[in-house]
Amino acid sequence: MTDEFYLLQPPRFSEEQLEFLIHNAKDYQITHGSLLKLVRAEEEHSVPTRPVGVSLVPSQFPRKCFEQGVRIQGIYNELYAKVASDEAWLAQALKDYIRDDPFTSILWEIYLESKRTNFSHRRISLGVFRSDYMIHLHKEQTSATHATRVDAELKQVEFNAFSCAGGTHANIVANMHQHLHKIGAYRTTFGNIDTSSSSLPPNDGINGIVRGLVSAHHAYYASNRNAPTRTGVLFIVQGRNFNICDERPLEYALWDQNTPIPAYRLIFGPDVIEQTSIGPSGELLFNSPTCPFSPLEISVVYMRAGYELEEYDDVGCAARLRLEGSRAVKCPSILSHITTFKKVQQELTKAGALERFIDESKCKDIRSTFAPLYPLDKSEQGLIGRKLALNPDTAGNHVLKPSLEGGGHNIYGRDIPNFLAETPEEIWHTFVLMEIIRSPTQSGMLMSPRGLYEGPVLSELGVLGTSLWSEGSEFEIMENDYVGWTFKSKAEDVNEMSVVKGYGCFDSPWLVDVP
Amino acid sequence: MTDEFYLLQPPRFSEEQLEFLIHNAKDYQITHGSLLKLVRAEEEHSVPTRPVGVSLVPSQFPRKCFEQGVRIQGIYNELYAKVASDEAWLAQALKDYIRDDPFTSILWEIYLESKRTNFSHRRISLGVFRSDYMIHLHKEQTSATHATRVDAELKQVEFNAFSCAGGTHANIVANMHQHLHKIGAYRTTFGNIDTSSSSLPPNDGINGIVRGLVSAHHAYYASNRNAPTRTGVLFIVQGRNFNICDERPLEYALWDQNTPIPAYRLIFGPDVIEQTSIGPSGELLFNSPTCPFSPLEISVVYMRAGYELEEYDDVGCAARLRLEGSRAVKCPSILSHITTFKKVQQELTKAGALERFIDESKCKDIRSTFAPLYPLDKSEQGLIGRKLALNPDTAGNHVLKPSLEGGGHNIYGRDIPNFLAETPEEIWHTFVLMEIIRSPTQSGMLMSPRGLYEGPVLSELGVLGTSLWSEGSEFEIMENDYVGWTFKSKAEDVNEMSVVKGYGCFDSPWLVDVP
Repeated sequence: MTDEFYLLQPPRFSEEQLEFLIHNAKDYQITHGSLLKLVRAEEEHSVPTRPVGVSLVPSQFPRKCFEQGVRIQGIYNELYAKVASDEAWLAQALKDYIRDDPFTSILWEIYLESKRTNFSHRRISLGVFRSDYMIHLHKEQTSATHATRVDAELKQVEFNAFSCAGGTHANIVANMHQHLHKIGAYRTTFGNIDTSSSSLPPNDGINGIVRGLVSAHHAYYASNRNAPTRTGVLFIVQGRNFNICDERPLEYALWDQNTPIPAYRLIFGPDVIEQTSIGPSGELLFNSPTCPFSPLEISVVYMRAGYELEEYDDVGCAARLRLEGSRAVKCPSILSHITTFKKVQQELTKAGALERFIDESKCKDIRSTFAPLYPLDKSEQGLIGRKLALNPDTAGNHVLKPSLEGGGHNIYGRDIPNFLAETPEEIWHTFVLMEIIRSPTQSGMLMSPRGLYEGPVLSELGVLGTSLWSEGSEFEIMENDYVGWTFKSKAEDVNEMSVVKGYGCFDSPWLVDVP
Repeated sequence: MTDEFYLLQPPRFSEEQLEFLIHNAKDYQITHGSLLKLVRAEEEHSVPTRPVGVSLVPSQFPRKCFEQGVRIQGIYNELYAKVASDEAWLAQALKDYIRDDPFTSILWEIYLESKRTNFSHRRISLGVFRSDYMIHLHKEQTSATHATRVDAELKQVEFNAFSCAGGTHANIVANMHQHLHKIGAYRTTFGNIDTSSSSLPPNDGINGIVRGLVSAHHAYYASNRNAPTRTGVLFIVQGRNFNICDERPLEYALWDQNTPIPAYRLIFGPDVIEQTSIGPSGELLFNSPTCPFSPLEISVVYMRAGYELEEYDDVGCAARLRLEGSRAVKCPSILSHITTFKKVQQELTKAGALERFIDESKCKDIRSTFAPLYPLDKSEQGLIGRKLALNPDTAGNHVLKPSLEGGGHNIYGRDIPNFLAETPEEIWHTFVLMEIIRSPTQSGMLMSPRGLYEGPVLSELGVLGTSLWSEGSEFEIMENDYVGWTFKSKAEDVNEMSVVKGYGCFDSPWLVDVP
């Protein structure tokens, strides 16, 4: 069922127009690395790929909401940089998890251990953040006429502070939609509606993320005057990676700087132990048999792995400690990493929480994007949350999420009471309850390795930001930027936004002015 | 067996270095469209691809020969522009073919027919040329010491004037080798040999070819003052195309001009008849249901199809006539097309032939790249050719090639006498006999869908050039440029350089100073 919120007609294509569109989209993807690597079919000498899932037509999105997300990203960057620098607040907010949850306790332990190493120097951290939103339709009856007024509100789904993916894919697909628009693939569809390029916002996410890495690289020099002329950025990655096309362009862009910045990849785990060492001043050294600059002093560690508990066996823990304990700028640090847990998101919705970190004037902008969030512990808020979750009528308006990062394990609406009935009460506190975001659907067309889909779709906007800050004698934010966006759509009846599984499709927002 | 001509040691990699190199090469290819489309496995919603064959390590090539090829490309451009404008000379050179060979006679007939349409306007033609060379080792004993002196000479394999492929792939693979060099993948291999980037010549082939198309586009305006503001370039292509990655980037670059130049694709054959028409002044109009600018006046027709006899059924002939008879700039015209036949190459080796077209001072430069070529007809030269071909001893030093364009049907060395014995003498004249180019082999490493190959390889350099000229009241060359190169290597024991079959691998010349 398609909502009637959006005013534009759904796209209508003749068979020839659709064929033209598909043909052009596939060829664009092939020629621009908009692909998924089929790692299971990889051979030494070759590897097959397929186009990543995309929306064939940009999906409508309220212009004011998009602009709001862009405008407040600087505040979110500041907020999370400050939260990540507030050990005491995090220790309090996550105390149950540090005690009971294996992943949180491992990370916290590594953090504490890393503090025991020599931290005399100023600590610099880089955050590459992505704040994910959906549109919430807020309906209210005007008291005078009893007519229903509908307002579109930007509501945060989650905040990602670790290993944010999709920036490169989103950039390429944004360029693809601009190209398809330019060649006229959409002209005959939307008729006389404004299809100027201002409706398709530009996306410079690749360069934006890279500017963050470059700033961090230079900041490392500035704060380590003994650093050698050549230092480099180390990408910590997973071994068999479908999503290589999302990572590699960032490395290429570093190498392509006027003064090339060496960028190498290292698989999280044993390789980190074998191919790095810590120098006399805490510098991280990359000693790879394939790196001609070996030992290469590392300025920035960029994490694209290490986000799953399974990666933290003894060697994984030692690897993370090696990285965290070094002088290198971490993107992100462990304290930044744990800000990504949904428990932190929920703690920030508590009255007065934001005010600890940012000016009152900014709190309102941030708070307006919060959907109501409840813990399921035995606190006052937790008891409210439990009540909402256990009553099938109120549960229907909520989603139950594991408090730690990582999607795909959510429980929706009326399934929640049964789920809780089968779940020991002792671990209820590892979930948060979020009011469902009632996002408008629209008619869309998705193309992914799963097939072609035409029908109602739901979209999610991710706003990308970078923040570079230092701690030590004083806290200072050195850089704070909005850098681009991701935008994904999925069939309405699918709960997952997973790109690798072919459900989530990269898309562009077609900005429209709504009431 | 590897020749000992090249002075550098063959590359030696540790297992880790090789893995690093392969890994980086594959990822670079995936992210930069260095791919072949697996058209047989294409589905409506998806299409698998694989990396195109590449040489993992640039192959050595004498610097002086590379520079010679670049230097003389302007002369070759001029020569072929003039040959393509000399109907009388072509009619004489190809008279047997126009009479007997189905493909030549079809093209000639279309050309004559197109002349009957209104040709009052100045005719402008664009050539995108590729002159293919191999290194010939010329050995002579010095009379004084009886020592053998070896000299490397650049010898032309063939000259391509129609639908030259590989420019985009070569550009991307050149960039890949530069990148692999930058990240240090070759440093530990070649030791102290000069590995500055001057050894890896830049390749800007994509932009170069596009500059040619853009010049032709503007020249169309200049000579057709009534042309509408918006005209576009039409790519005439094959329907199911493995090699889409070689073509599409040229279109994108046209769209990405400051003032975008519309570029659309049209499949050679019935689609040309259905989706084009000729306007009142001979202008070619593109009337596609998917083109929002329809009818779009076409400034330049860029042919990437129509090079095989099989494409010229009645509809194919009508399609080519429609294009050729229009006002649009053809890339190439039919007369340019037929200059690509090897018979023309052989005719140009005749004494005095070059002097008809270009200054005497330039003839020497061109002639020095000719390998001895003979017809097998009953002319004086032809009788010499027959004698060489029929004697197994002299045949061993030759290769027999069909006189028309297209590789893969060559007969080599001692197989020639038997082949001729089984071939009716009446069609001997459809072959030319070329002295074998004795190219030095070197140790190489190739990676293609066929597998990894380590062993002796042979390389072929293609020099890309564009030429824009006009005919009418007077002949004028308006543009004449060297624009880039292609470089391919194959295993020594394979005769084919086919990229689609996985034999020919894109490579870069590693320029070395040889005696």
